[in-house]
Amino acid sequence: MKEVAIGIDFGGTNTVFGVIDRQGKCLYEGQVPTWAHPEIEVYVSALYKKIEVSLGNINGKLNLKGIGIGAPMGNFHNGCIEYAVGLPWKGIVPIGELFESASGGPVIVTNDANAAAVGEMIYGAAKGMKNFVVITLGTGLGSGFVVNGQLVSGSFGFAGELGHTLVRPGKEGRQCGCGRKGCLETYVSATGIKRTVYKLLADSMDESELRNISFNDLNSRMISEAAKRGDKIAIEAFEHTGEMLGLKLSDVVAHTDPEAIFLFGGLTLSGGLIFEPTNRHMENNLLNIYKNKVQLLSSGLNSRNVAVLGASALVWQKIENSK
Amino acid sequence: MKEVAIGIDFGGTNTVFGVIDRQGKCLYEGQVPTWAHPEIEVYVSALYKKIEVSLGNINGKLNLKGIGIGAPMGNFHNGCIEYAVGLPWKGIVPIGELFESASGGPVIVTNDANAAAVGEMIYGAAKGMKNFVVITLGTGLGSGFVVNGQLVSGSFGFAGELGHTLVRPGKEGRQCGCGRKGCLETYVSATGIKRTVYKLLADSMDESELRNISFNDLNSRMISEAAKRGDKIAIEAFEHTGEMLGLKLSDVVAHTDPEAIFLFGGLTLSGGLIFEPTNRHMENNLLNIYKNKVQLLSSGLNSRNVAVLGASALVWQKIENSK
Repeated sequence: MKEVAIGIDFGGTNTVFGVIDRQGKCLYEGQVPTWAHPEIEVYVSALYKKIEVSLGNINGKLNLKGIGIGAPMGNFHNGCIEYAVGLPWKGIVPIGELFESASGGPVIVTNDANAAAVGEMIYGAAKGMKNFVVITLGTGLGSGFVVNGQLVSGSFGFAGELGHTLVRPGKEGRQCGCGRKGCLETYVSATGIKRTVYKLLADSMDESELRNISFNDLNSRMISEAAKRGDKIAIEAFEHTGEMLGLKLSDVVAHTDPEAIFLFGGLTLSGGLIFEPTNRHMENNLLNIYKNKVQLLSSGLNSRNVAVLGASALVWQKIENSK
Repeated sequence: MKEVAIGIDFGGTNTVFGVIDRQGKCLYEGQVPTWAHPEIEVYVSALYKKIEVSLGNINGKLNLKGIGIGAPMGNFHNGCIEYAVGLPWKGIVPIGELFESASGGPVIVTNDANAAAVGEMIYGAAKGMKNFVVITLGTGLGSGFVVNGQLVSGSFGFAGELGHTLVRPGKEGRQCGCGRKGCLETYVSATGIKRTVYKLLADSMDESELRNISFNDLNSRMISEAAKRGDKIAIEAFEHTGEMLGLKLSDVVAHTDPEAIFLFGGLTLSGGLIFEPTNRHMENNLLNIYKNKVQLLSSGLNSRNVAVLGASALVWQKIENSK
């Protein structure tokens, strides 16, 4: 019997699931549009039916060890999605309980960035590491911390948050979706770098191909391609993003003294454009005792289904912790 | 046989030790001037001799379970004091090994703020808490983190550092003893509030009794007393200190999602003068999910020998972790 875990990633558009073995191989991947069923009970039963069908279609006998779920505002402690923006279900949604009823097996819930951190530890480049940080640079900035070999979930289940730490407190900070001003993710994320490009276009008089693109059309891949062609504004935007992130990472190192910090998500596909300034500004601002000790790495996971892999890893992590 | 642990606190002037039982009762306290013997081997043997004499003088049979040491730059992982400023011994000092040779028993080393955190967990107000932060506001700002019931020591042994995180990065930040500019402890500490008073005296034209005191004569107790008498500059200095600390604590909460944050050290003797603005600014800057959930508390330990208590607690903590 092959042991497998289900990983589910709740996204703003699609909810993707995968059947994953202990080595991180994806045996099947499927999805259900997140907005397909506005009632959560109906949604879970439709999604679980699809999972059952997929399990039946895989060759060989399977032993399902559990389900891991990564979701925005997923709470590790109570298995709920709590007041998530961008999902159809409002308030506190007992997603873990619903999947437990459906599957009869254990279900572990956490937010997507924490799931990515566990994925990196179970299948990826953080295997064997006891202290590391994972940062996902997508539309927003997610983060997960592992300390002493365990995910940091905190007393209410929401620890490991860097996107909403304040890097420009006070009136001059950028407006954030959380209602405050100056959060890190308003500067360091795919959206953040767009905002920075627009600020630079406003402040400077330099020529830039980005002057022909509207805010809504602009994406981080375009900024990256412009930078590779030598566009000054685009290069400066990466430099500024790396400075904000590097500065924050020097604080993160002081907080948790990690072996490595992993960056992944759309913005990191720009490679050296984001890694180089981030690493330089981090090193310049580190206390002497930390200099040249902390590795800034890209994820060791296949980026296509990293969220699903991470969610499934919660199951193996739980089994290993209980040994 | 009564089980006891030795706690040793290495300070810039005196090194204090105590014989402490499991309940945190100090059966004996003694000290040796830190600068009495410039050779560390001689120092350790003199100090340990004094400890042995004190053990002999205590009534009843004792079972010594181990020695805990709190020291600036004490490294939890290798038992060394590493490049501490303000101690007579330079470079990397294998203090743990030396005491192990002398005593034949286990020795645990960490920095003073981490020791305070373990003390709070073993004897104090953090008993039973799994996630909390301890901040010591003395000449500098020390901090210790407990996550999932364990001290956060990091991969190199230096985690849990808040004093040297950057709150005013760039040229306008205050010069710090670590060689950088804008570290939190240049604003939030007994020295930091003095610097703030002097800045306010420069910027404003308000009358203040503090205009009669030189920088070197000024201490945080005087600022506290002036504030209680209604001195505007002194009150403003506490407000500003609380703002800087509260803002940083809102980030700390996002990082680690603690049940409580404990403040202690000289500056906290000012009570509400420091607690009230700190708590207000922390709450104002917290993400909504954390509002009114995190307690800001004073230490539950007797402040006279909190450092020695904390150091001794390392021994009980180690015994409990190995169960």
